Amino acid sequence: MGKYAGKSQVLVKPKTTKELSTVVTWCHDRNVAIVPQGGNTGLVGGSTPIHDELILCLSNLNAVRSFDPVSGILTAEAGIILEQADSFLASKGFIFPLDLGAKGSCQIGGNVATNAGGLRLLRYGSLRGSVLGLEVVLPDGRIWNGLSGLRKDNTAGYDLKQLFIGSEGSIGIITAISILCPRRPTSTNVALFSVPSYAACLKVFSQTKAHLGEILSAFEMFDATSYEAVKKHGGGGTGRKVFGDESEGPFYCLVETGGSNAEHDSEKLSSLFETLLSDSLILDGVLAQDASQAHNLWQIREECPSALSAAGKAYKYDLSVPVEKMYEVVERMKERMESLAWVGGKVRDVAGFGHMGDGNLHLNVVATEFSEEVQSAIEPFVYQLTAEYNGSISAEHGLGAMKAPYISYSQSPASIELMKRLKKTFDPKGIMNPYKFIL
Amino acid sequence: MGKYAGKSQVLVKPKTTKELSTVVTWCHDRNVAIVPQGGNTGLVGGSTPIHDELILCLSNLNAVRSFDPVSGILTAEAGIILEQADSFLASKGFIFPLDLGAKGSCQIGGNVATNAGGLRLLRYGSLRGSVLGLEVVLPDGRIWNGLSGLRKDNTAGYDLKQLFIGSEGSIGIITAISILCPRRPTSTNVALFSVPSYAACLKVFSQTKAHLGEILSAFEMFDATSYEAVKKHGGGGTGRKVFGDESEGPFYCLVETGGSNAEHDSEKLSSLFETLLSDSLILDGVLAQDASQAHNLWQIREECPSALSAAGKAYKYDLSVPVEKMYEVVERMKERMESLAWVGGKVRDVAGFGHMGDGNLHLNVVATEFSEEVQSAIEPFVYQLTAEYNGSISAEHGLGAMKAPYISYSQSPASIELMKRLKKTFDPKGIMNPYKFIL
Repeated sequence: MGKYAGKSQVLVKPKTTKELSTVVTWCHDRNVAIVPQGGNTGLVGGSTPIHDELILCLSNLNAVRSFDPVSGILTAEAGIILEQADSFLASKGFIFPLDLGAKGSCQIGGNVATNAGGLRLLRYGSLRGSVLGLEVVLPDGRIWNGLSGLRKDNTAGYDLKQLFIGSEGSIGIITAISILCPRRPTSTNVALFSVPSYAACLKVFSQTKAHLGEILSAFEMFDATSYEAVKKHGGGGTGRKVFGDESEGPFYCLVETGGSNAEHDSEKLSSLFETLLSDSLILDGVLAQDASQAHNLWQIREECPSALSAAGKAYKYDLSVPVEKMYEVVERMKERMESLAWVGGKVRDVAGFGHMGDGNLHLNVVATEFSEEVQSAIEPFVYQLTAEYNGSISAEHGLGAMKAPYISYSQSPASIELMKRLKKTFDPKGIMNPYKFIL
Repeated sequence: MGKYAGKSQVLVKPKTTKELSTVVTWCHDRNVAIVPQGGNTGLVGGSTPIHDELILCLSNLNAVRSFDPVSGILTAEAGIILEQADSFLASKGFIFPLDLGAKGSCQIGGNVATNAGGLRLLRYGSLRGSVLGLEVVLPDGRIWNGLSGLRKDNTAGYDLKQLFIGSEGSIGIITAISILCPRRPTSTNVALFSVPSYAACLKVFSQTKAHLGEILSAFEMFDATSYEAVKKHGGGGTGRKVFGDESEGPFYCLVETGGSNAEHDSEKLSSLFETLLSDSLILDGVLAQDASQAHNLWQIREECPSALSAAGKAYKYDLSVPVEKMYEVVERMKERMESLAWVGGKVRDVAGFGHMGDGNLHLNVVATEFSEEVQSAIEPFVYQLTAEYNGSISAEHGLGAMKAPYISYSQSPASIELMKRLKKTFDPKGIMNPYKFIL
């Protein structure tokens, strides 16, 4: 987004954990600040330097160390690109339990360091459950070997690896991970529904869970504003139009299944389809007939963020809100912009899309220009609004430099105090990714 | 097991978190040590006092605070018995994502405090993934409210709740949990296979995963020694005999499926059955025809621990070992007992059973008497053996008083040092569950 830029003079690309450890030791002895950098795809300024930090780039640390096809446990270095890790696993009949839009450039170490969520959390759960172990270079340069080939281990004492998951490089640098990978589904289906209201989306979600049960692998939502942007600015242009004009609704739900028996999966999906139509919960629906159609349907959802960015200057917020009320946040933001008489002027539109299955909303306010005036009408209002719904101001994008000042909207003073004590315990010199995360 | 007994004079049963907080504040101000106690079903002396600690009993803190049927998020107090929590969820069409033999008396707070594993980890994953939030009374008496109604939240900063999961009451007392509960399967099947070798068990496991895919909910193993004990000492006696003499093998595998479509599930199971028979991977197999038969098959596996205890004085170890080598640990322990010429004498037998799907072995050495001599022939040998296989000496039972001295067999000096610093950060006075966990 071009929001953050430092003036670092040094970028180091170690090839081994030992080399990386030597660099960190050197920095520690001389009080040199470090910013670890993976694929540099973050949206909150977590991996960019703020001043002149030394940039520690993980790209050359990219070997698969081992894979066990009986247990499904992969041990691999931090710098492997997510898509490459998944391709390696695909060749063995397994799947990486995480998928996200940036998969072609983000790295698995960065995914773990930011506790990335993505498209299939609904099915495979959070990295906090699937990551079994980590290798970390601590702020003083020591190598902490917490890799594990075990699914269950209660001699961990305190589960230290959990402190590093999502810590955004503030207390150590993740150099390798062990992760439990599920079998790759042999049968995949994708359907897109046009839905008459958000209340109907909730019912579609509920029916989908009931009919598809264990084969449901994603449930995504986007609104008509997002869809219009995709048809206007997305890679496929108007080719992305799926429904006739009369069947286009205010909301769209994308459903994916991943199972082990194609016939069984189609039967379950057909039965869902019939229920949704007969209960008038959808205006229309399409079921992809092959992999290329499935890819095209997914593209509509995946292009929402870039299409909205192309539609103007987009202020982007990544919120967790209880799913029943999720869309109210978009409506209330739109009301605020309307009350300022900005809609159609300074603000082109307000849109919402996201991982409905996880209560994760991506709210976009598309302005004609980035300005102090617009930003101060949105923030901290959006954070207060989220707090009002007992939500979180960062569902999956992390804190970074952007949201570090706002942590008190979702965390209590007691929590923040404990976190500061932890940061001090691990990194007393404060050299690890400073000016971010926990200030 | 009657191994641990303190001489506490005071047991307190607070009815609210606030009352509990008042008690802890009182103790903190006066340096009084506390042992938190849930269902008191642990096997490692984690919830029994060692000296005269005040016992803080959670039983009266047992309300369901909320349940959201859209997201499946349950918020409930720590003292609810696991089976009661699951019954409550069953009435809503949901399932608690944890099940274990002690479900009739263990409490959900204790389950989380010990990071319990149990019978369906294979399907629903670890509590580290499903627990979304906690309410904890800290060692100084403050209430830390980390409950969450959100599936995704990356403003947590460091994920403090993870420090409390599995911390065995050493840095705070869990008073309530928020947990993500899956839909309850509407169709359940249970099958038991008699298997000619451990090598065949591994192949059965692999075929089972391939055929059953997403509906597999448990894969358990027990050896003939365990099965003989069940037929001799278990609740059902010889009624537990399932196979003809000629089909009884050295190993048994129990498979459970949980799905949303009974017809689809049976088809998948039949196809597995055919493959296993045609590839001669099993000697025989039975498929439960109704819920009562399913219950009886489960009983064989669930009675293994008590039946082996009834067969003599059983030394019990809960080990995590890579699944390919899991049974070698049993064989090597047996060889050691044979080399001492004890088998049939001081030692009746050596048996193994467990959660094969998770690489979790329960090793039992059944002696005629508990004695220093037998114990010192087993320990620390069993811990060294486990370390040799890169295993863990406590897969799911925790450290407690029993294994706290042996943590260095599976954790590095750097890890132990970090844990001691954490303990000191949270509990500088050392009043929380002393003499256990991290010494």
